[in-house]
Order: sequence, then structure tokens, then C-alpha cells
Amino acid sequence: MIELSKDERIDDTGFADIRVIQDPKEFCYGIDAVLLSAFVAGETGTKSYKLNRVMDLGTGTGIIPFILSHKMKISHILGIEKQKASFERAIKGLELNHIETIEFHNLDILQIKDNAFGKFDAVTCNPPYKKKDSGIKNNSEAKFIARNETSATLEDFIRIAAENLKNRGHLYMVHRPSRLSNIIYFMKSNNIEPSELQFVSPRQGEAPNIMLIHGIKGGKNDVNVLKELHVYEGECYDKEILRIYERLD
Amino acid sequence: MIELSKDERIDDTGFADIRVIQDPKEFCYGIDAVLLSAFVAGETGTKSYKLNRVMDLGTGTGIIPFILSHKMKISHILGIEKQKASFERAIKGLELNHIETIEFHNLDILQIKDNAFGKFDAVTCNPPYKKKDSGIKNNSEAKFIARNETSATLEDFIRIAAENLKNRGHLYMVHRPSRLSNIIYFMKSNNIEPSELQFVSPRQGEAPNIMLIHGIKGGKNDVNVLKELHVYEGECYDKEILRIYERLD
Repeated sequence: MIELSKDERIDDTGFADIRVIQDPKEFCYGIDAVLLSAFVAGETGTKSYKLNRVMDLGTGTGIIPFILSHKMKISHILGIEKQKASFERAIKGLELNHIETIEFHNLDILQIKDNAFGKFDAVTCNPPYKKKDSGIKNNSEAKFIARNETSATLEDFIRIAAENLKNRGHLYMVHRPSRLSNIIYFMKSNNIEPSELQFVSPRQGEAPNIMLIHGIKGGKNDVNVLKELHVYEGECYDKEILRIYERLD
Repeated sequence: MIELSKDERIDDTGFADIRVIQDPKEFCYGIDAVLLSAFVAGETGTKSYKLNRVMDLGTGTGIIPFILSHKMKISHILGIEKQKASFERAIKGLELNHIETIEFHNLDILQIKDNAFGKFDAVTCNPPYKKKDSGIKNNSEAKFIARNETSATLEDFIRIAAENLKNRGHLYMVHRPSRLSNIIYFMKSNNIEPSELQFVSPRQGEAPNIMLIHGIKGGKNDVNVLKELHVYEGECYDKEILRIYERLD
């Protein structure tokens, strides 16, 4: 029996019977996490790789590990989350979903000790989008931390990913297109070569507002820019998005 | 009276009465040069800037200076071309078009002396797309040089652009999307911050095969990724392309 705190609720993800525990006053996962999982799983035109050990940096309530464990066969996924309340929701989600290949740690990514968890085949990361000191602090401290670089910066996320990857390991990240040049620069400075890049725009003919990037530690320096995805077609989800959500017949 | 060598011909560009002298056995300009000029002129959604002095690195037969001088008011454009035959066609084109704001120099960009021409508000560049030693040498030496990094590499083009730009000056480049991460890395290593980025795909739903990038020397580190352009709609040019070619009523 899962005990929910006030304001917590159990949300269906739509992926088989996977559910996630969220507090809408604090933070709910968005399409970014779903797109990143599909991008990792090779569903958006990316190459898919056999991944045995995956680390998710800033896992929140565990949505990326949950979706990935559904979409791919991964022996072990480790989610790291510094916010205690989100971490506890991730743990409760784990119980709820009966998934034994996922583990969560309540830890600031800046505190990960060298080789504390061994090396990983892939690191996934949906980091806060807003730069340090650029966000307007809103009522919820938890929401603020999830959306803003409070202690770990974008550069920290990439450096820590690099440290925890095997040679030829994969870094998958979702972010805003505006941060593209810094992401590429930080990746290359940490010996991660961008390998695949995909933009997502709300609708065809509109500028992209989401970018998905895949880098390989010690990889080659050519990047494959994949066809753009669109979230909507008119007022409805685009077919590609429905396919990713596994809602097409 | 312009004297043409064997195999040379005079081609209309479609931009007012601007013509260019080309040898189809050697090299003819493509849509890349047209797209780059439109990107500089603010016709694809980019910001447009007042540019007084512009340098075009590897100008070939001068197509970018010719189109730019038609699309924008620029006091002085300097085109640098190392291949003698292309340079001579550029000079003949200049006579043909009666443009007094353009000047061409027959010079390898690697030989540009520090501050030999003063500093520029913008540098444009449609460099060879193929990496050093990766191209298959074909019959025409001229075509090979135009398409392959023979002496100056991508990094050289960016470094030399940076050296010739004023602070806050603009670098505009067209290249293949596969080189994106190196371009961004070399720009940032030379204190040029990517400011605008635009991909061009053959048709909607296809992966991009051209990228346009605009960096600002000493600029900010956020990049604006513009809406994607498509060259064709079905078998015809897309309307955006017709507008750039100034062929819409």
C-alpha cells in the first residue's frame, strides 16, 4: 500500500501500466522527458544502442527511468535526485510499478564521488533550463529547483555525465535550442562528441523550442542532424508524437 | 567588351540584371550562396544589421558579393579568391555588372597579412564542404579546390574571419549540418559566439542538408535557432525560396 502525502497524486503515464507519483503544486513531467526517452530508444530516427547500465542525472520523480525501462531492455538504471520530496516520490513510484532494475539515490549530482557507482553505458539528463540567477523565484521551492540551475550548472551536468561514462558511452540530453552552442562547447571540452541532434518545434513552420542531443565519449566529430519533429498538427498531437506516446493503433 | 575564354559563359542570376561569369566544367554557384546572402540580408527571419565593410572569404566568381550588393546597401565588399581563373571571372563579372563597391583580390586566405585590409563589419564564407583528404579528386582541379579543404581548413576559415572582424562584427557561414559541432567549437574558441542558426532541408519531413550560421565576435552565448527552411514543395521551389530568389509577384 503506497501512502500519499497531501497534494500528491498517482498519474498514469500511458506507457503500459506505468504510473508516476507527482505533486502538481511542485513539478509534473512534460513532453521533454517523453521525447528524450524516445530519442534514446531510437524511436525518432536515432541509432539505438544496447545499454546495460544507465544513469539519469536529476531524475525528479523518476519519469525517465520509468519510461526507458518500458521502452528498452536495460539491466540497471540509476536515478540521482537531490530534492528529498521528489526522490521519495520516485521511490514510491518504484514500489507502485514493481520495477527491479531501477534504483534511486537522494544525492546532489555535485556530490557524486569519483567512480562511486562505476561507469555507465549511457547518461540521460533533462536538466533545469534556466540559467543561474535568471529565473524569477516562484512560490514553490521544488519547482524552482527543478527548473533553474540552483547549484549544478549546465557545464556541471555535462562534466559529471562525462566522468560517469565509459569510453564510447552515450550522453543524451534535452534542452532549449538557445543553449545549443554552450552544450556543444561543454561536450567537446569534456571529450564528448555530438553525434545526433534533433530539434522539435510546436508546429511545422515554427521555430524549434526543444532540442535533443546525443554525444559519444571519445566519438567522431561529425554530427547527424535528424529531421525535425513537430509536437502538434493543428490542435492535435502530430502522428510522430502519438507514435512515441504509443497511442497509435 | 568582356572577353570570354573557351567554356566560359555569362549566366543571369535572376537578381535584377546581375550576371556572373562561370565555367560549368569548373564550378557553378549553387543555392547555398543564394541562401547565405538572404540569411545575411535578414530575409529568412534573421536580424539584419547595417554593414559598411564586408569581406567574403573564398569568393569564387564573386557570387556572394554580387548578390549582397543587390540585396543590401554595403559601402565596400572585398572578395578574396586564391584560384586565378575564378578570380579573373570575378573581375570580368565586376566590369559586366558595373558595381563600384566591390573589390576582388587574388590571394590565398592563409596569406592575408594581419590588418592588411583593416577590420570588417562582417565576413561571409561559403567554404569547401569536404574535409582535407576526404574528397575523391575529380577531373577538374578548380572544382576540387572549390569543394575540398585543400590548404585552408574549416578552422582556418573561422580563425581568419575572426582576425578580420571588428569587435561585435558578424561572421556568416553556410555549411553542412554534419560540421555543426566543429563550427560552433571553432567559433567559440575564436571568441565568436553563435547568434543565429538555421537549417535547410530539401523538403518538409526530411533531414536538413544545409546549415546557415551567424556568429558575433564578443557576442552573447545564446543562439536563436530559426524556423527550418525547405527548398522544395513537391517538385517546385518552396515559396520561401522563390521569395529569396525574388521570383514571387
